[in-house]
Amino acid sequence: MRVVLGVTYNGQGYQGWQSQSSGQTIQDKLEAALGKFTAQRVSTLCAGRTDAGVHGLMQVVHFDTDIDRDTYSWIRGTNANLPKDISVQWAVKTTSEFHCRASALSRRYAYVLLESPIRPSVESGRVGWTFNNLDERSMRKAADYLIGEHDFTSFRAAQCQALSPVKHVMRIDFHKRGAYWRIEFEANAFLHHMIRNIMGCLVQIGQGKKPPEWMAEVLAARSRKVAAPTFSPDGLYFLGPRYDPQWGMPERTPAYDALP
Amino acid sequence: MRVVLGVTYNGQGYQGWQSQSSGQTIQDKLEAALGKFTAQRVSTLCAGRTDAGVHGLMQVVHFDTDIDRDTYSWIRGTNANLPKDISVQWAVKTTSEFHCRASALSRRYAYVLLESPIRPSVESGRVGWTFNNLDERSMRKAADYLIGEHDFTSFRAAQCQALSPVKHVMRIDFHKRGAYWRIEFEANAFLHHMIRNIMGCLVQIGQGKKPPEWMAEVLAARSRKVAAPTFSPDGLYFLGPRYDPQWGMPERTPAYDALP
Repeated sequence: MRVVLGVTYNGQGYQGWQSQSSGQTIQDKLEAALGKFTAQRVSTLCAGRTDAGVHGLMQVVHFDTDIDRDTYSWIRGTNANLPKDISVQWAVKTTSEFHCRASALSRRYAYVLLESPIRPSVESGRVGWTFNNLDERSMRKAADYLIGEHDFTSFRAAQCQALSPVKHVMRIDFHKRGAYWRIEFEANAFLHHMIRNIMGCLVQIGQGKKPPEWMAEVLAARSRKVAAPTFSPDGLYFLGPRYDPQWGMPERTPAYDALP
Repeated sequence: MRVVLGVTYNGQGYQGWQSQSSGQTIQDKLEAALGKFTAQRVSTLCAGRTDAGVHGLMQVVHFDTDIDRDTYSWIRGTNANLPKDISVQWAVKTTSEFHCRASALSRRYAYVLLESPIRPSVESGRVGWTFNNLDERSMRKAADYLIGEHDFTSFRAAQCQALSPVKHVMRIDFHKRGAYWRIEFEANAFLHHMIRNIMGCLVQIGQGKKPPEWMAEVLAARSRKVAAPTFSPDGLYFLGPRYDPQWGMPERTPAYDALP
């Protein structure tokens, strides 16, 4: 049997998703909790690895097991063994036809950014920060250059393991609530650091340091050297993958409504 | 000269507002930062002391000093010496006619509560949690009994130092966004633990374990023994005092917009 879990976490205290010898990653904590609950070694796969400091509003993982429990037991039993900043929000039992990574039609992320002359405090570690005001029209115009299928080499980290730098960006939406921007991204897949590198460019354009057309130049250059520095992981939230409705996976978790 | 500061903080890592020998309070951190910036010993007074784990979206403090700096220097100079989960959001220079506590016409708090069968994780330490769904109509009816001037002895902590248990509650408002409740309270002043004790009762009533009229009975009893247990500090945010507009103090900080 294949079990699929929707997992939320605050990434502040962890070295990202992917298991490390330190044991201080989300995957390590989740597999330890599943191991305690099932009294077996459980290996998980995830829909989208997140970096150190990046948060998960719906990471989707799957694993195969011969243990049959009802879905609510998988949730409660795992959560009982997880630290308080990680939790399983839903569980679905399915077959090996479903694959959390390969079946994903797209991935969605949100970047939350505080626009204020004063640095954040209550939301420290959970928002990016820009001292200067941002111009929405310029950022929208710049973002439009990224929509569609492109070679995103300019926004790719050196350590990226993707087979191809060509990705299809479906949408980049801008929302504002008081001093907080929420910028949502959806693509078939993202390269390593791609959103943080795009954010670095968008903020420079929003601040008027570069014109919107600069985004097109950076994209066309296919060189990491021309883009802005990688923006902070603090405001980045993985909203989760989308799947064909036939699989019956939830679209989101309640935590999405806690974003500004 | 009297300097007034609007301060925001995430209360998770601190033993509340009030200075302690441990040094692990917001007041200790703020006074240490002011001491570094001014190279003098600075003693602050605050508008409303918050408990361990309670957050500040606009604590207001004042102190007297013979050092004359522009307001922006007070903000930047203090923030440079504060930990990342505390920051000064605004500064106003005034005279000793203004008193952050005595001049306050009212205090405002918000309680943020997650209603979900699954415990919080991304928002751990920043929201209260109820497993059961809450009935808004019952809670509103119960809250209505508290509006006006009453003896709030039933909701008062044993260690409360207020001179009188009689307080005037002006409003209790209910808002819902997805799975998150935001319940706002305004009163001339609050007793120690008063909101957390009211929240304990409201949640029992919202869950249907007690009828709305029970709130009136608890209030009338003037005995701490009849009320529900004190609710968690995690979801409690001090929104700040209100002052007469003549003082020119800001009404809120940007962080308010980050609440659900």
